Amino acid sequence: MILLDGQACDSPLLLDRGLAYGDGLFETIAVREGQPLAWSAHMARLARGCAALSLPAPQPAVLLDDAQRLLSAREHGVIKILLTRGSGGRGYRPPIAPQPRRVVSLHPWPAELDEGNGAPRQVWVCRQRLGHQPQLAGIKHLNRLEQVLASAEWPSADFFEGLMLDIEGKLIEGIRSNVFVVQGKTLLTPEVSRCGIAGIVREAVLDCASAHGFVARVEPMTLAQIGARDEMFLCNSVMGLRVVGEIAHDDGVIRLENHGAAEAIAAGLRVAKVIP
Amino acid sequence: MILLDGQACDSPLLLDRGLAYGDGLFETIAVREGQPLAWSAHMARLARGCAALSLPAPQPAVLLDDAQRLLSAREHGVIKILLTRGSGGRGYRPPIAPQPRRVVSLHPWPAELDEGNGAPRQVWVCRQRLGHQPQLAGIKHLNRLEQVLASAEWPSADFFEGLMLDIEGKLIEGIRSNVFVVQGKTLLTPEVSRCGIAGIVREAVLDCASAHGFVARVEPMTLAQIGARDEMFLCNSVMGLRVVGEIAHDDGVIRLENHGAAEAIAAGLRVAKVIP
Repeated sequence: MILLDGQACDSPLLLDRGLAYGDGLFETIAVREGQPLAWSAHMARLARGCAALSLPAPQPAVLLDDAQRLLSAREHGVIKILLTRGSGGRGYRPPIAPQPRRVVSLHPWPAELDEGNGAPRQVWVCRQRLGHQPQLAGIKHLNRLEQVLASAEWPSADFFEGLMLDIEGKLIEGIRSNVFVVQGKTLLTPEVSRCGIAGIVREAVLDCASAHGFVARVEPMTLAQIGARDEMFLCNSVMGLRVVGEIAHDDGVIRLENHGAAEAIAAGLRVAKVIP
Repeated sequence: MILLDGQACDSPLLLDRGLAYGDGLFETIAVREGQPLAWSAHMARLARGCAALSLPAPQPAVLLDDAQRLLSAREHGVIKILLTRGSGGRGYRPPIAPQPRRVVSLHPWPAELDEGNGAPRQVWVCRQRLGHQPQLAGIKHLNRLEQVLASAEWPSADFFEGLMLDIEGKLIEGIRSNVFVVQGKTLLTPEVSRCGIAGIVREAVLDCASAHGFVARVEPMTLAQIGARDEMFLCNSVMGLRVVGEIAHDDGVIRLENHGAAEAIAAGLRVAKVIP
């Protein structure tokens, strides 16, 4: 017998390894007019995550069928796919032949993303740092306490996002987004090889940079390298690209310019149906 | 509507933050003759974890009542308590007034622990490393992918446990246990301030060391410091103390002596009903 909040409960989810250990992966996919965007890219990342965790990868067609059952033709929303190693094993030790569980859910479009008409956003620098864990970096696994604790810092509704540094003080990403800095014709984004998530839109921006006349570079970055003449933008599958106007940090504020790089790149990615 | 393995499912667990992000804590408590061992120490660690995650701490009396409903008078087993931040919030961002969920379950006594009659055990050194995350170190939270991946390495049934190093190569703990090295009259155990779990039995061993004539020191440690004249033991709430006979690593095997320190300390902790 298992007690859930004091009541007997026989849900197999109570013994799921996703709940017990965060032993699984997820994807968050924007939906426009009933169509999940960048579906193949999300499936490819999920497959990479499965390989990293030695999980049998689900058939994308099965997941697409699940998603389509939830979607009406003109739906704007967000599909979340959560995949766990299922139940079983001995303590931490995974079962030899895991039976993964999948959860596919539809969530309303986050209306607050449509506020502000694309005006540059204010971000803060989180006190919570990202630890280094090369074996788990890049993939979208279910161990997300660092992001939860960073989000709990949210200073006020004026802030759109928090920037996360690693334990060495390097800038890595936003809590729920990747980050790019535009310096002249160079597009810089931090490495995500020791921590951070390799976002679908981050990858798409890197891929299309040269078509927009930029040289893209993936390299370590600190806040001190970011100057007032630079442009910064955040990106993820649901927010698309968002220009940052101000970075609030312990010692003051960095105000940034907007040279239109994000707008130009976003327009291209919208046409390609990568972002909403 | 949410689909679980393709079937509509309305379990609130599907939206639980424990499943989504590992946003919660757990305790694993040995039960002998119907009595949970070291109950207050487990409750104290759970409360420390709640403070670290800004979770409202549950009443120990409520958890004890749950546990007692599952236990018969002569039960030998393991009680697991899992506490999550419940549902809600906006993405990673926790709800302002979380409604935690608690899951209390009884598991059979792991019979393999009674095999081998206390003979020294063989351990291997895991390839999977522990990342540094000071804000989460020490507490028993639900982000356990490092332990899952380390456990998946288990080389053969001959091995009792894997030793985990941090990303700097320092020895930190076993996958599911803490580790002590006995050098003469000194009892050494690694720090768990950047990674690792502060085990209930680890704490109890440190507390009683001087009563057994040992000087206890908590300090960074590498495998190279461990010599063939040393004794090593592992400990956790369910296994109690286990002497290590051999450490298998990439370059060979370290064979260890047994000077009886673990046996003496374990005898004391058994009388004090800290370990089974």
